[in-house]
Amino acid sequence: MQPAKYLKYLSLPALFGTDRTKEILHVNPTVIPIREEAQEVNLYIYDYDATTLIEKKVGDIESCFGFKTSNRISWINIDGLRKTEVETICNHFGIHPLLIEDILSIGQRPKMDEVEGVMFCLLNMLYFNSAKKAVETEQISIVLGKDFVISFQEDANRDVFDPLRQKLAIAQSKLRQRGADYLNYTMLDLIVDNYYNVMEKLGDEIEMLEEELIRRSNPSSLARINQVRKELIILKRNIAPVRDLINSIIRSESDLLEDRTTKYFKDVYDHIVQASDLCENYRDIMVSMQDLYINNVNLRMNEVMKVMAIVTCLLAPATVIGGIFGMNFETIPYIHNKYGFFIALSAMLFIPIWMLFVFRRRGWF
Amino acid sequence: MQPAKYLKYLSLPALFGTDRTKEILHVNPTVIPIREEAQEVNLYIYDYDATTLIEKKVGDIESCFGFKTSNRISWINIDGLRKTEVETICNHFGIHPLLIEDILSIGQRPKMDEVEGVMFCLLNMLYFNSAKKAVETEQISIVLGKDFVISFQEDANRDVFDPLRQKLAIAQSKLRQRGADYLNYTMLDLIVDNYYNVMEKLGDEIEMLEEELIRRSNPSSLARINQVRKELIILKRNIAPVRDLINSIIRSESDLLEDRTTKYFKDVYDHIVQASDLCENYRDIMVSMQDLYINNVNLRMNEVMKVMAIVTCLLAPATVIGGIFGMNFETIPYIHNKYGFFIALSAMLFIPIWMLFVFRRRGWF
Amino acid sequence: MQPAKYLKYLSLPALFGTDRTKEILHVNPTVIPIREEAQEVNLYIYDYDATTLIEKKVGDIESCFGFKTSNRISWINIDGLRKTEVETICNHFGIHPLLIEDILSIGQRPKMDEVEGVMFCLLNMLYFNSAKKAVETEQISIVLGKDFVISFQEDANRDVFDPLRQKLAIAQSKLRQRGADYLNYTMLDLIVDNYYNVMEKLGDEIEMLEEELIRRSNPSSLARINQVRKELIILKRNIAPVRDLINSIIRSESDLLEDRTTKYFKDVYDHIVQASDLCENYRDIMVSMQDLYINNVNLRMNEVMKVMAIVTCLLAPATVIGGIFGMNFETIPYIHNKYGFFIALSAMLFIPIWMLFVFRRRGWF
Amino acid sequence: MQPAKYLKYLSLPALFGTDRTKEILHVNPTVIPIREEAQEVNLYIYDYDATTLIEKKVGDIESCFGFKTSNRISWINIDGLRKTEVETICNHFGIHPLLIEDILSIGQRPKMDEVEGVMFCLLNMLYFNSAKKAVETEQISIVLGKDFVISFQEDANRDVFDPLRQKLAIAQSKLRQRGADYLNYTMLDLIVDNYYNVMEKLGDEIEMLEEELIRRSNPSSLARINQVRKELIILKRNIAPVRDLINSIIRSESDLLEDRTTKYFKDVYDHIVQASDLCENYRDIMVSMQDLYINNVNLRMNEVMKVMAIVTCLLAPATVIGGIFGMNFETIPYIHNKYGFFIALSAMLFIPIWMLFVFRRRGWF
Amino acid sequence: MQPAKYLKYLSLPALFGTDRTKEILHVNPTVIPIREEAQEVNLYIYDYDATTLIEKKVGDIESCFGFKTSNRISWINIDGLRKTEVETICNHFGIHPLLIEDILSIGQRPKMDEVEGVMFCLLNMLYFNSAKKAVETEQISIVLGKDFVISFQEDANRDVFDPLRQKLAIAQSKLRQRGADYLNYTMLDLIVDNYYNVMEKLGDEIEMLEEELIRRSNPSSLARINQVRKELIILKRNIAPVRDLINSIIRSESDLLEDRTTKYFKDVYDHIVQASDLCENYRDIMVSMQDLYINNVNLRMNEVMKVMAIVTCLLAPATVIGGIFGMNFETIPYIHNKYGFFIALSAMLFIPIWMLFVFRRRGWF
Repeated sequence: MQPAKYLKYLSLPALFGTDRTKEILHVNPTVIPIREEAQEVNLYIYDYDATTLIEKKVGDIESCFGFKTSNRISWINIDGLRKTEVETICNHFGIHPLLIEDILSIGQRPKMDEVEGVMFCLLNMLYFNSAKKAVETEQISIVLGKDFVISFQEDANRDVFDPLRQKLAIAQSKLRQRGADYLNYTMLDLIVDNYYNVMEKLGDEIEMLEEELIRRSNPSSLARINQVRKELIILKRNIAPVRDLINSIIRSESDLLEDRTTKYFKDVYDHIVQASDLCENYRDIMVSMQDLYINNVNLRMNEVMKVMAIVTCLLAPATVIGGIFGMNFETIPYIHNKYGFFIALSAMLFIPIWMLFVFRRRGWF
Repeated sequence: MQPAKYLKYLSLPALFGTDRTKEILHVNPTVIPIREEAQEVNLYIYDYDATTLIEKKVGDIESCFGFKTSNRISWINIDGLRKTEVETICNHFGIHPLLIEDILSIGQRPKMDEVEGVMFCLLNMLYFNSAKKAVETEQISIVLGKDFVISFQEDANRDVFDPLRQKLAIAQSKLRQRGADYLNYTMLDLIVDNYYNVMEKLGDEIEMLEEELIRRSNPSSLARINQVRKELIILKRNIAPVRDLINSIIRSESDLLEDRTTKYFKDVYDHIVQASDLCENYRDIMVSMQDLYINNVNLRMNEVMKVMAIVTCLLAPATVIGGIFGMNFETIPYIHNKYGFFIALSAMLFIPIWMLFVFRRRGWF
Repeated sequence: MQPAKYLKYLSLPALFGTDRTKEILHVNPTVIPIREEAQEVNLYIYDYDATTLIEKKVGDIESCFGFKTSNRISWINIDGLRKTEVETICNHFGIHPLLIEDILSIGQRPKMDEVEGVMFCLLNMLYFNSAKKAVETEQISIVLGKDFVISFQEDANRDVFDPLRQKLAIAQSKLRQRGADYLNYTMLDLIVDNYYNVMEKLGDEIEMLEEELIRRSNPSSLARINQVRKELIILKRNIAPVRDLINSIIRSESDLLEDRTTKYFKDVYDHIVQASDLCENYRDIMVSMQDLYINNVNLRMNEVMKVMAIVTCLLAPATVIGGIFGMNFETIPYIHNKYGFFIALSAMLFIPIWMLFVFRRRGWF
Repeated sequence: MQPAKYLKYLSLPALFGTDRTKEILHVNPTVIPIREEAQEVNLYIYDYDATTLIEKKVGDIESCFGFKTSNRISWINIDGLRKTEVETICNHFGIHPLLIEDILSIGQRPKMDEVEGVMFCLLNMLYFNSAKKAVETEQISIVLGKDFVISFQEDANRDVFDPLRQKLAIAQSKLRQRGADYLNYTMLDLIVDNYYNVMEKLGDEIEMLEEELIRRSNPSSLARINQVRKELIILKRNIAPVRDLINSIIRSESDLLEDRTTKYFKDVYDHIVQASDLCENYRDIMVSMQDLYINNVNLRMNEVMKVMAIVTCLLAPATVIGGIFGMNFETIPYIHNKYGFFIALSAMLFIPIWMLFVFRRRGWF
Repeated sequence: MQPAKYLKYLSLPALFGTDRTKEILHVNPTVIPIREEAQEVNLYIYDYDATTLIEKKVGDIESCFGFKTSNRISWINIDGLRKTEVETICNHFGIHPLLIEDILSIGQRPKMDEVEGVMFCLLNMLYFNSAKKAVETEQISIVLGKDFVISFQEDANRDVFDPLRQKLAIAQSKLRQRGADYLNYTMLDLIVDNYYNVMEKLGDEIEMLEEELIRRSNPSSLARINQVRKELIILKRNIAPVRDLINSIIRSESDLLEDRTTKYFKDVYDHIVQASDLCENYRDIMVSMQDLYINNVNLRMNEVMKVMAIVTCLLAPATVIGGIFGMNFETIPYIHNKYGFFIALSAMLFIPIWMLFVFRRRGWF
């Protein structure tokens, strides 16, 4: 078959593309990132304690510096990464150069680090792109220091921490009553909770795929199974290390974490463990589904081949009978008989019917 | 094949439904639960020590409050969950808000927590729905405090703890002699014991399935294998984490647990470990069964194809002979011979018989 | 195919029975055992030290009571379990009710427990039933106390500890020189040693099966592979937990165990570890064997199909030639030629021979 | 089929060669290496502190000896291994004979050792040979001592540490400010970073392979899948042990490592963990790809067989009809009819068309 | 197919024998060994320190006794095991009876024990029997005591420790400078080094097998794959436990081991770890190879079936045309035409050619 034709036959090209494979394989956290400088950078500052909340969007990074010395909790949220700005603020807040590198890097594995008095978490927010049916990631870095939290997001257009802002607005909320570690917890909690949403949407895909497989599996089903398997690799890669991350926080003896916050991190831990388990369940289901697909394809193929073989087989005796009486011998019995033709015809008809009967009795179709 | 027709052919739709897949995949313990408020809530209070047993069903949650200060062990059992009532009682008994969230959540992974002087266990009671051949779950939360146990069940209509009530009625029972931790143990023991009943019923299904596979496997067998595999995922998901749960209790150094109760929890631990092992055995058996199914399908297919091929092959020489003597050459030997036709016919008969003989000797069928 | 016929064809029914599956799946150690009361109970008492050996078979359980206070080591061996008797003796020797439950239970996982001054081991003796080709189990409970060992066996007719009795009869034997812990070791050693005998017999089965597979695999081979896989599940289930059991004894700090006995338990541990490894080897061999079976079946099927296809293919040209000269055109070359028929016949013969030659050269059969 | 012909048909011989298998299997780190003495040995010495940098290429090994006592950090880089020279320098610097053996050995597993006051790392630099599409290794040994680092490379022609030299040239660089342990870190970091480059190139291969598989899989695709699987074995074998290596450094309590360098090693550790994970992802992708290949081959085979079977089946009725009216009975209906022939011909045409219609409706092609 | 014939066809009987399976399965280290008493026993004594070396072959075991009290290191090497002699010497050197049992046993798992002041290592020397292409084992027991080493070998004809003797002869060798623990190390090192030689020879087999598979796979290839898989089981079984053995020595706190020897044992440990890894690589390669074999078989089968189906299919239209013009209708067009026959013949020729053209364009062969 010609390549193009075959391709057309076999799949929706969009499903079978190799782009996703490229994204899975080409991870290199060690190079100096060829990160495009963000076009737009949004800086939000929230400076709060139980009684006061200062909230403002600032234009340049230096405006944040003053909040370092406030007695309140300061949350500086930076949407969109530009090298100079990240370095400026990190240097001001005394964040180690290695962490700056991590913040600016691409394709890092989620991890937690305690370096020189700050606690650093790097993990990925996940989104499900319904159009491409793909899991997308956005790298989030969170720096927890003494009475401040600085968060870095890759994409200025997505608002990950919106629910957080709503809670901050409420003076009685626990968030306002507690310290910076609780703010850090709330962020991680938000991110982990969102994993479930992404899994739920991927779950919808899997369910639709299963329905399709049952109703009418076709080669494009295989393409979609393949696609989902790749998404599961992406998913697992982003979720599994977060387990270690949260666990490291729980076991940390950092002064930045109050004892009473530990139980909240344990709660996040429970959720991330369950999410990991769920990923395994997804995999199991996909394996069953591939088995199902292959079985369906085989069943249908067998069905076709069987019918063809049976038809061919049933018609063979008729061919033989036709051959017998088509021989040019002088003396052939019944040849001059008036009903000879019809007797032969009957034989041609009844032998297959008898064969059919035998085949059925043997349960062959 | 048309979808509908194919589906009809391939399976009992009930077996191949995707509903179960949905339930397996769509777990989200992090959202605020869209739990329907229970229509009916039953509140039972048991206040007992070795000599006295006060047992009553109360109408409103506030009636329980008095028992907090009794010198006896108080067991408050709440069948059916409504947000306000759960919050009311938990606040009164000083249970941490995070635990309240857990009690009200849906789809939590079984876990154990020690928070501010209470020990909290959340796990699932399992039931086997014989009609749907499905494992069903009911979330049970147990809060063990100083001299009290509060248990929360989702469903007011199922009576999980009935055997417990019977034991409570007997003054000499160990339950009455011991403290609240022993009551907690008895509850966990009841739940774990019930896992075996569920597995036993699922085992009956598997056994029937195997019998069916041996006698006459058909495409619906595969559907049922698939179905059982999904049930095993559910089963494992609910049983495996309970192992950690019980182990955490054993290793706990909480004041709520008396030393002499430990050996009872160890007993439960032995049972849950064995249940986990058994789950693995179930999986192994299912894998063997799927192998068996595929082998049976192949054996039958091979059987059919072989017979068809052999029949076709046996008749081919007859066709050739018919063709030979059907040619219109002027000079064909034996053509004018009186027995020519019968000689040809004999050849048509004996060549296949000889072939059959050869095939059989070679063990081809 | 009709069920009965198919079954007859496919297998020896005895091999493909589902009974074994039932036994594997239906384990429930938590229910009150529906254990039949033993018809026969044999009570043997051995009261010994380095110099004296009192050995007697007693009729009723109370006769054992006196030996509790003897200064010698007492071994009470109870063959056949009846509820009342087990409870009587256990209560007298101060054995915890939970252990009594374990002794009377059915289908327990092997385990070791230290409860209130006694060390309790529960494990299964294995036998290989050569007739059924099945691994059978007998539950053995061993209670080690201060200067006494009580052992409980399910079946009064099997004599597990016979070699032990022989050693006891010899005054110089190490058994007589040492304490009760050494007696306990000797029992465990006997049981573990016997595992190898069972595995050896199962190994004989596997070897015969392999020979059969190589010589002439047939569908019943698959049935037997399946059967052996089930026996391996039983085997592993009984052997694997004993590893933990022995390990717990070694790590135990109980006063009941002398230091100098530890190295003997380590020896048993080495053996049980090796037995576990061997189980894995058995599994690997079975996997290879199933691969071999499937390959053999496929090879033979391919063989048949290929020959059929080739025969059919070889005869096709003859049919065509027959058809060509069988056409009723007025003008057909060679038709009036005296040798025409023979020329056609030669073509019918030589074309297949040439094809055969080509096929062979291409290595197609 | 003749071997040569078959081989030609099946594969590009270059792809299916067994050379690579030989390299994978024949590892023997224990023999005295039959290492060819390097033809060319390059000796570079860098003696530096924050203010001074002495850099020179020396001709003979003895010229290095003086730097042992310098107060600056000395880095001796030896490109190309010759037994005498390695022994000379190691003896001078007090390096244990076992380490000398390791340096001169071939095929060692990456490892880290602390022996008599020096820290020894042995690992492999990886290169991707684009021509052979193969991962190549070069053994690197790094000895960290008090204020000196000696590095040994196998191949004088490859310049692994070039970026390092550039950093050394800059007086303000951190490398110049810190001790020998930081130099050691920089080397390991360089090597690990390079693993990603190799994986990226292998990833390109995999991506191209996937594209080929989708467009037109052919037997040589399988050869290439096989080839990539072998490269992945090589890759994993070289990367996985480095994880332990770095971890041992982090947990080491050697005086040679300053506390402030630990976080840099942790950074390398994060990268090597991620590289290991990525290797697993590569494997998963390869498994999917092999599944895809087999499915494609089967789909195409099925396609062909189905069409052939259908064509054969469709023509069978025509053969039968031809046979019917070719019989030599005296009385055959329609035989004398003017349109008889055309009626028969129509039947020959319409029966297959009707069959085709039925087959299509059943979805058989 | 008849058993004998089938067997002949399928395999080289030598390859498919079940003897090896028997050896793998029938391991029983617990029975009193039915070890044949060695026909020949060779006793060598080496009594040495840095300055002196006494080397002699003695005839009877008692001659060794004197060396127990020498101030030098004594190595007693016993080639060939006889019960009485082993017991005599062990009793004299105060070796625990359990160890005597181990020395005399058969089929033990490699292990290390510290009992009453001696350190005992039991492991297997491996040999590759090139004729049988099988891995053979010889059990070696090494007892390390205060200033003496006693080694027991099964087979008097194989000289395992020959390189050791050469080193002993050299007074300056490290072996002569160090204590008995270094002698013990040298022995283990020799044995582990030899594992690589065995693996290398097995690797040669695998490589040749792969070459054969690529060039012309036949059923005997499968037999050989099976055979190698069994050898790998043997290999892994003997190598894997040695890892634990060496590790136990390293972690041991025995007075028999000097601190400065530890790094040598670590070196052996590195080698045994790498050997274990290599075993896994061998397995991976064998799995790839079996995949390759099955693929090759399928490819060739598909090839044959496809050609047959196509030939059959191509000839079918000719048959039909022959049938059409062979019908006995009175009125058949072209029948009286002079060129009718040739027109029909052309159709018979051109239709298949056209079909061939279509098939090719679709890429079906």
